[in-house]
Amino acid sequence: MTNPLILDGTRVAEAIKEELKARIHTLESQGIVPCLATILVGDDPASETYVRMKGNACKRLGIESKRIHLDKSTSTEQLVEVIAQLNADPLVHGILLQHPVPHQIDERAAFEAISIHKDVDGVTALGFAQNAFGYADYPSCTPAAIIAILDYYQIPIAGKHAVVIGRSPILGKPVSLMLLNRDATVTICHSKTENVAEMLKHADIVIAAVGKPKFIQGEWLRKGAVVLDAGYNPGNVGDVDYDACLAGASAITPVPAGVGPVTIAMLLKHTVDAATRLLRH
Amino acid sequence: MTNPLILDGTRVAEAIKEELKARIHTLESQGIVPCLATILVGDDPASETYVRMKGNACKRLGIESKRIHLDKSTSTEQLVEVIAQLNADPLVHGILLQHPVPHQIDERAAFEAISIHKDVDGVTALGFAQNAFGYADYPSCTPAAIIAILDYYQIPIAGKHAVVIGRSPILGKPVSLMLLNRDATVTICHSKTENVAEMLKHADIVIAAVGKPKFIQGEWLRKGAVVLDAGYNPGNVGDVDYDACLAGASAITPVPAGVGPVTIAMLLKHTVDAATRLLRH
Repeated sequence: MTNPLILDGTRVAEAIKEELKARIHTLESQGIVPCLATILVGDDPASETYVRMKGNACKRLGIESKRIHLDKSTSTEQLVEVIAQLNADPLVHGILLQHPVPHQIDERAAFEAISIHKDVDGVTALGFAQNAFGYADYPSCTPAAIIAILDYYQIPIAGKHAVVIGRSPILGKPVSLMLLNRDATVTICHSKTENVAEMLKHADIVIAAVGKPKFIQGEWLRKGAVVLDAGYNPGNVGDVDYDACLAGASAITPVPAGVGPVTIAMLLKHTVDAATRLLRH
Repeated sequence: MTNPLILDGTRVAEAIKEELKARIHTLESQGIVPCLATILVGDDPASETYVRMKGNACKRLGIESKRIHLDKSTSTEQLVEVIAQLNADPLVHGILLQHPVPHQIDERAAFEAISIHKDVDGVTALGFAQNAFGYADYPSCTPAAIIAILDYYQIPIAGKHAVVIGRSPILGKPVSLMLLNRDATVTICHSKTENVAEMLKHADIVIAAVGKPKFIQGEWLRKGAVVLDAGYNPGNVGDVDYDACLAGASAITPVPAGVGPVTIAMLLKHTVDAATRLLRH
């Protein structure tokens, strides 16, 4: 068995950002600075870190980031009002609501308040459906990152059997539908699946999106499987038992420096796309 | 091997319609007659038959049916304008656009013109996403019929492995997501799946939605599988080789009198639901 290909997310993200630089330069020459508004509600340290990382990534590339930090006692109505103002602001091209939000907030209602034209994180129901039907402007960023990594490394999707573990509205479900639209046969497993190991036995491509540290075991994998780990658990641990899976996989994403950086690159790309669309209207 | 249970769609449809009768009576006493508008574009004989069947089913139950028949040369703009008028008509509660529509029409644009509040056939992108997230008022009728048949016969879904063959926006995709939301593990196969037989080997529940007459072979099934045939091909033939599958299945829908009548019953139910919602607003 040869060593598996390490799917280097940092490298994929750099390639995406390199393309964006020229586009941002062109936009600037036309007087447009792409701007992503990030909304953080409360003071969860992990969420604060994610928002800061996204803001810094914007800054490094010449994308403006408008950071809005709301008190943890914010109501759904207050949050929706803030989102409405950002929808109406012609200088804001993309809106990211960092989740999870505090319990008193109706997260779905807040997501739905985001204009489809600024939904660069792909969280609205309409954006989900457009993605499911194959014509979304802004697919959810992590699913888009997973597809981008496969494409960057020219790993075929069509005709392959992909097994997705997880069914969340912004990860498991959309990535399943994107793989399906790319002609994979797709199996979706989740917390109520009794025999995940059995389901993985014949998988060509494994997408771990379950939110359980080191859940995917090495002996579950088919020899030569391609493994993408979208999990991020405390302590920089993915959903895949990386060392155990390394032996049998033909290609695998590490954690960190796998899906994570590409997810941020997709968010930046969508923000630039949104600013570019402004020119055409 | 005992004989398989024949999943009698006519019986399920009658049970649904029996419940609707009382609800329609109540609505009438409040001065509301549920009304479904059906739009047929062109003169495809099969489509004419389907629209007539739906209209007649409405009439038998005391639901008004407003039949609109447009010339086969109708443009997207003209069709969208007709739909806009129906959206604005307070006496119309549900809108069904019979598909397929003639080639010159942008079917997706026409579907999207239907108000989410009148999308009783579950064809809009927003309706699709709401269904995918588990809170749609009106899931697509055939997927809803499949779930209704399973529920009527008390066939468990949670924890089972369901294999769906087909990935259309109004059948394969939504029924996959509905089964997923009911805690099935779901595999979606399609025309580019090379080894459908292999995929079916472990299926507890098989949903045939592929549009190929007698595609599903008896020897492909696991012994004791539950088989639902959503196919309707010329000559009243389903997607399942019924006689061949009868031997090994534990339960199976016939064609005709399987999924078909329940699909119509769901359309009627959604129309009554839409009229009922009017009372609450």
